[in-house]
Amino acid sequence: MGDRVKTPLDGYAVILAGGTGTRFWPASTPGRPKQLLPLGSGPSLIRDTVDRSLALFGPDRIRVVASAPLTALLSAEIEELPAEAWLVEPVARGTGPALALAAREISAAEPNAAMVSMHADHVIRPLEAFRATVARAIEAATTTERLFCIGARPDRAETGYGYMKLGEPLGERTWKVDRFVEKPDPETAQGYVEAGTHLWNTGIFVWRCADLLEAIRSCTPEMAPALPRLESYDVSGFFEAVDPVSIDVGVMERAPNVGVVEAEFTWDDVGVWNALARTRPTDAHGNTVVGRARLLDASENVVWTEGVRATLCGVEGLVVVESGGELLVTTRECSADLKTLLARMDAEAS
Amino acid sequence: MGDRVKTPLDGYAVILAGGTGTRFWPASTPGRPKQLLPLGSGPSLIRDTVDRSLALFGPDRIRVVASAPLTALLSAEIEELPAEAWLVEPVARGTGPALALAAREISAAEPNAAMVSMHADHVIRPLEAFRATVARAIEAATTTERLFCIGARPDRAETGYGYMKLGEPLGERTWKVDRFVEKPDPETAQGYVEAGTHLWNTGIFVWRCADLLEAIRSCTPEMAPALPRLESYDVSGFFEAVDPVSIDVGVMERAPNVGVVEAEFTWDDVGVWNALARTRPTDAHGNTVVGRARLLDASENVVWTEGVRATLCGVEGLVVVESGGELLVTTRECSADLKTLLARMDAEAS
Repeated sequence: MGDRVKTPLDGYAVILAGGTGTRFWPASTPGRPKQLLPLGSGPSLIRDTVDRSLALFGPDRIRVVASAPLTALLSAEIEELPAEAWLVEPVARGTGPALALAAREISAAEPNAAMVSMHADHVIRPLEAFRATVARAIEAATTTERLFCIGARPDRAETGYGYMKLGEPLGERTWKVDRFVEKPDPETAQGYVEAGTHLWNTGIFVWRCADLLEAIRSCTPEMAPALPRLESYDVSGFFEAVDPVSIDVGVMERAPNVGVVEAEFTWDDVGVWNALARTRPTDAHGNTVVGRARLLDASENVVWTEGVRATLCGVEGLVVVESGGELLVTTRECSADLKTLLARMDAEAS
Repeated sequence: MGDRVKTPLDGYAVILAGGTGTRFWPASTPGRPKQLLPLGSGPSLIRDTVDRSLALFGPDRIRVVASAPLTALLSAEIEELPAEAWLVEPVARGTGPALALAAREISAAEPNAAMVSMHADHVIRPLEAFRATVARAIEAATTTERLFCIGARPDRAETGYGYMKLGEPLGERTWKVDRFVEKPDPETAQGYVEAGTHLWNTGIFVWRCADLLEAIRSCTPEMAPALPRLESYDVSGFFEAVDPVSIDVGVMERAPNVGVVEAEFTWDDVGVWNALARTRPTDAHGNTVVGRARLLDASENVVWTEGVRATLCGVEGLVVVESGGELLVTTRECSADLKTLLARMDAEAS
C-alpha cells in the first residue's frame, strides 16, 4: 500500500462496472458478474481496479458507475469507498450516458477536473507504468483540451479488439487519432502489428469533464437533447430520454479533438476464458488452473473449479469450467466465441 | 417379465459380484462399485444380471458371491432373492476360491447340478440368445463332463481381452479349447479376428459343480489342500488356507477337459468408460450421455454427470465424468488405461 502515500494525481477515476460477463459463463452470472471474479492477480477484478485507482487518486476522487443491483454487490465487496463514490445508472444505456453522468457529477463539484475512465474488469500492470501513462494523459488533456484514449501497442493479431490509427504527433507517446478501426480481419490485424501504425483501443479514456460534456453537446445527438435534465440533476429523466450509445461511437469516433496516449503498461481486457492463460500464472506445461485440479499429460488447458476437483489426463487446449451446478468443456478456440455458442444452444433448445 | 414364466433351465446361476471398478472412477467408488452403476440398459448392472439370471433359472437357483460390505450394498438393491442366495467371501482370494465356495454350496444340495458362472458387471443381449447358449453349454457340460467357457466371436482387435484358440469340434458351436492367449498385441489380435480361429474368453463358465470341484482337486494346488475345510463348511478356514488364484489360471488353463461354446449373444465386459459408447445409446453424432448435458458441435464424446449439467462445445472423443465432487476429463483413448493413469497420479502426488 506504499503507493497510496504518493502524491495523488490531480483528477478523478471513473470505473465502469456494468456488464454481466456472459463470456465467463458458468463462473460469471448476473448474481456474480465477471468483475467480482478473481481473473487478475487479486481476489476480484473490481478489487484490483479500485486498488489501482487508489494508487493514483484519493479515495474521495473515485466514482463507480453501475446498475442498482450491481452497485449493491460491488459496494459489499469494496467497503472503503464513501457513499458518493457509487453512481447508479437507473437503466443500462451504454457507456455514453454512464460517462456523461460521471462527468456531470464531478464537474458540478470541480468544473475543470480531469477524469480517467476505465473498465472494472481489465488486467493492467505494472502499477507504476499505469500511473505514468495516466499522468501523461491528464497533462495532455488539460493542456490541449482534447479527449484522449489510452492505446496499447499490439503484440498479436487480435481480431476481437478495436484499433486506432495514429495521426499527427502531439508529444511524447502522444498523437492525434487518424481513425478508429473495429475488429479487423486477421491479415489486416497482422499488418497493424508489423507496421506499428495502430494501437489497441483499451477503452481507457482521459479528458476534462467539461470537454467531454461539450463534445457530447456538439457530436452526440443520442444524448445532447437530454443533457439539460442531467444538469438539473434529473438522472432518471436523462437516462429515459437518451438513446443507447457507446462512448466510442457516440463521442470518440466523431469528435474532432481526439488524441491517443500510448500505454507504458501491459493491458488485457480478459474478455474470454482463453485470456486467463495470459493474466494468471501457468504451470510448466502451459496449464492455467484456478481451483482444485490435478493434471497428467495435459497441456495448455484453462481449468476453473469451485465445487469439484478436476482430473485432466491426456488433453490439450481445453477450457474446463465448473461453477454453480454447471460444467463447461470446450476448446480454447471455441471459448473466444462462447457468447454466440451459448445463444445458439439456447435457440436450439427452445 | 414374460421370460420368467418359461420353463427354467436345469441348473444354477452364480454371479461373481466382487471388484470395485477403479476403471469407472469417479463414478465407481468402494461404496458404489461398478455393478451398482447404470452402465447397461437397466438401473444397474447387477439388476440387469439378476434379471437375466431369473429369466433362466428359478429364484432359488441364484447365488451371488461378494464380500460382506458389498453383499450389504447389493442385497439392498436386489431385494427379491432369498437369504441363501448371498454367499459371502470372508476375504478376496480371486475368482477361484469364490467359485469353489459356490460349487460346494450348490453340490451339497444337488451333487450333479450344473452351474453357469457369470460376472455381475457385463452387458449381454439379447436375452433369448443368452438363454440358448447357456442351455447348449449346460447340455454339453452334463453329457461330456467338461468345463465350458462361453466364447464370443471377436468383432474388433481388442487387446485387453483373453482369447481361446478353438480345438477339435465337440458339437454345434462347441469345441475343445486348444489354448488360452492373454492380451495379444494388436497385430496378433487382428489376425485372430480375420482367421476366425479364436474366440474371446467372456469369463462366463458352465460346468457341473462336481466336475469343477474334481478339477480343482487334481489341477489347482492353490486350493486343493484346503478343499476338505470347505467340505466341512469351514468357509473362513478355506479362504484363509488358499492362495489367491483366478479360475482361468487355476483351472481352465490347466484342466485337460476344457471346452468352449460360442455365444449367440453379443457380450461386452464394459471394462472402461470408452465401452459406454457400445453399451448405451448414442446420439446422431456418436455422443453417449448419462445425466444432464447439452452438446454443440461435439461428437464421439462419453459424458456422465450426476451433480452438474454439462455443456460441451466443439470437442471430440472426450470422456467427461462428474460424480461425488470429482470431475474427470480425458480422451476415450486414455480412458482405456485409467487405472494406470490414476495410480501414476497418486504416485506423483505422494
